[in-house]
Amino acid sequence: MTEAKVTIIGAGSAEFSMTLVRDLCLRESLKGSTICFMDIDESRLDVVYGLATRYARETKAELKFEKALERRGALQGADFVINTALVGGHSNEEEERRVGEECGYYRGMNFGVYLHQLALMLGVARDVEDLCRNAWLIQASNPVFDGCTLITRETRAKAIGLCHGHYGAYHVARVIGIDPKEVSFQAPGVNHCIWMTRFLRSGKDAYPLIDEWIAEKSEEYWRLWDGDATDVQMSPAAVSLYKMFGLFPIGDTPRFAGAWWHHTDLETKKRWFNKYGGFDSEIGWSHYLSGLDRRMEAMFQLHGDSSALVSKEFPPEASGEQHVPIIDALVNDNRGCFQVNVPNGGALEGFGGDVVVEVPGIVSARGVQAVKVGKLPRRLTLHILRTLVMPMEQGLEAFLTRDKMALLDRILLDHRTRSYEQAQRLVDAILALPFNEDLRDFR
Amino acid sequence: MTEAKVTIIGAGSAEFSMTLVRDLCLRESLKGSTICFMDIDESRLDVVYGLATRYARETKAELKFEKALERRGALQGADFVINTALVGGHSNEEEERRVGEECGYYRGMNFGVYLHQLALMLGVARDVEDLCRNAWLIQASNPVFDGCTLITRETRAKAIGLCHGHYGAYHVARVIGIDPKEVSFQAPGVNHCIWMTRFLRSGKDAYPLIDEWIAEKSEEYWRLWDGDATDVQMSPAAVSLYKMFGLFPIGDTPRFAGAWWHHTDLETKKRWFNKYGGFDSEIGWSHYLSGLDRRMEAMFQLHGDSSALVSKEFPPEASGEQHVPIIDALVNDNRGCFQVNVPNGGALEGFGGDVVVEVPGIVSARGVQAVKVGKLPRRLTLHILRTLVMPMEQGLEAFLTRDKMALLDRILLDHRTRSYEQAQRLVDAILALPFNEDLRDFR
Repeated sequence: MTEAKVTIIGAGSAEFSMTLVRDLCLRESLKGSTICFMDIDESRLDVVYGLATRYARETKAELKFEKALERRGALQGADFVINTALVGGHSNEEEERRVGEECGYYRGMNFGVYLHQLALMLGVARDVEDLCRNAWLIQASNPVFDGCTLITRETRAKAIGLCHGHYGAYHVARVIGIDPKEVSFQAPGVNHCIWMTRFLRSGKDAYPLIDEWIAEKSEEYWRLWDGDATDVQMSPAAVSLYKMFGLFPIGDTPRFAGAWWHHTDLETKKRWFNKYGGFDSEIGWSHYLSGLDRRMEAMFQLHGDSSALVSKEFPPEASGEQHVPIIDALVNDNRGCFQVNVPNGGALEGFGGDVVVEVPGIVSARGVQAVKVGKLPRRLTLHILRTLVMPMEQGLEAFLTRDKMALLDRILLDHRTRSYEQAQRLVDAILALPFNEDLRDFR
Repeated sequence: MTEAKVTIIGAGSAEFSMTLVRDLCLRESLKGSTICFMDIDESRLDVVYGLATRYARETKAELKFEKALERRGALQGADFVINTALVGGHSNEEEERRVGEECGYYRGMNFGVYLHQLALMLGVARDVEDLCRNAWLIQASNPVFDGCTLITRETRAKAIGLCHGHYGAYHVARVIGIDPKEVSFQAPGVNHCIWMTRFLRSGKDAYPLIDEWIAEKSEEYWRLWDGDATDVQMSPAAVSLYKMFGLFPIGDTPRFAGAWWHHTDLETKKRWFNKYGGFDSEIGWSHYLSGLDRRMEAMFQLHGDSSALVSKEFPPEASGEQHVPIIDALVNDNRGCFQVNVPNGGALEGFGGDVVVEVPGIVSARGVQAVKVGKLPRRLTLHILRTLVMPMEQGLEAFLTRDKMALLDRILLDHRTRSYEQAQRLVDAILALPFNEDLRDFR
């Protein structure tokens, strides 16, 4: 048992924070640890701090809590820093989207938010280098792919990116009628673009069961489907990508995977995803946002009443998220295999050594050791390099050089762009937004 | 002085062959050499053979000539093999273009011709390995970039690709008012996408003179311009690319350079290139084709009469093409620096070691040694990787695997594609063309 200090940047993401708190409360081996919540939104911070304190009391967990409005103070003495912050929240995203649509980009483009996120991630990583250099930095908010590549190139912070998309493999299992407990899988790639290279049921290849499901049951499944908008794991888009590349796309992968042709308009999205047009359509995304709002409101309400949290919103069982088990593995050498985003270094062939890839990693007191997974099919590798890795590199180049032309490079090659002038208009319109004032150094 | 045997594959490209013959006739140090013309078109072959023999007699050059309809025989004993063949000639290209336009692709897409060209190049390279393994294979026909990358990866033939686009640097000089003789330059990249990293007049940076010309004279130049359709070296497109990437694009580079936005329709092309819409518009290209026809007809006429060739079409002065000087350098150690397409191996940073790049090469009896040129600006490197290198890799993958889906990968990411179904239609339509029957093994 070792005490650790875990600092959460952007802790006002109440749901994320409470999941972490619950997992920590349940983890005997991290007894005595301190959680420091940091957010610039004081009212949300109070809610999270209040709920966490109450939950620890209810579960008799020996945890200490701190709250902070200022980042550098919160990082002092941290052993783990979890960055879950989204600069400007979803409202900036929506405003950029509106401006993008005015420029003719269906569903817009969030490169202002993107650049702010990179700046925050790099700022946090530099503060970690400066204030708590032995801490592990866990990057939880997006863009994990671009951001983790940036911070592992530019700083010496010990950083990993985490996402939960890979659990989609269990959803595949459930839908095709196998017990997820019998399943083991491997799904490497880059974040939000991971592909099942192995899918076993009790040690035997279960891909034939996917094929059977597609041949015999998929049509009916799609006809009767009645899930929520974010449920795209078994969508026609996912099956089409599987047919294209020979591996099943997992988690967030069916949402984009460089397949612009699934996203040209709402009708097309409905055909490829679900009746809402999938996670990222105007319908799906607004369902998602109002779900977030509802859950945040519920947190505020819970904070206001005094009923037991355990029986209500937070039953005392592990969430399945990787953060706390990984902390435990690093602190107490409770070795485990996790899905991590780390600099490639040869783990996934065909991708640059300093590009962050999502692969299995063995985590223990020795640190995080990526598992060499070999390679994806060559066609898929090329597709990912062209549609995701190169745009990421162009995005980082723009961020680092503050060159407006570098932004234009990437936007010109977006499949929605119809002319040079349109791309210029978009750049100017987004840079002109009030909350992008600090991007005016782009020349 | 050393005798060499030079075999020209596709020698019926009469103009190319006669340029080579003239250069050889003028090169004392290659006296006694043999030129073997090979083509499957017997009437063209006869014309070339006839004119070459006559020209050598007129210039009293001691050269021997052979002609062959069959490739393997022509390669026996060759020291140099120059491949200038275009499978199916321009008529197949035009037919594919028509079908492409029917599928909604402005100016079409020649992937049938492309695959045939790769097959021919690889076939020639394998025959060279087999029949004349010490010969140098000079790849002159397109796609030089894709083809040379393919044959240098797949065979051990000693291959280089040649193009004359880099001479465009002298055209830049002439237009901005400097004597090309005073100019030295370096323009690395990949074939048809090369950029002036150095442009000196009498040893001093001459880029400021380009800037001056753009600021003060370009508008007038474009207004008064009265060149031919292929003249795009100093077009608005070229200047725009220069402004985007900071280096002037040379030769064929302004024609595409991954800038799809210059090519959306004829009006757009006219704005970016010239009143014909540049080299590749429906107007420019048909000018180019009828020029080829006219020149071929002139060759047939010359073949029919008996007047002196020297004074008429082929004045006895070196063409400036690199082929014969390179042969001389390799055979007689008449060392020189040329613009060559060879596997990168670190010559141009940021590109894969086994990707063929266009760089200066020192050629001597030791062979061809690429000059390490450093790197292009990072933004430009990323743009080339995304718009030219990745598509090349996807093209080679399709060629090597005979996978229809691999063709689709590349076509889906063509900026003109509007839907998955459109890309499928194009693939099916082009594969259905009679002269693409041997591509029916694509599955």
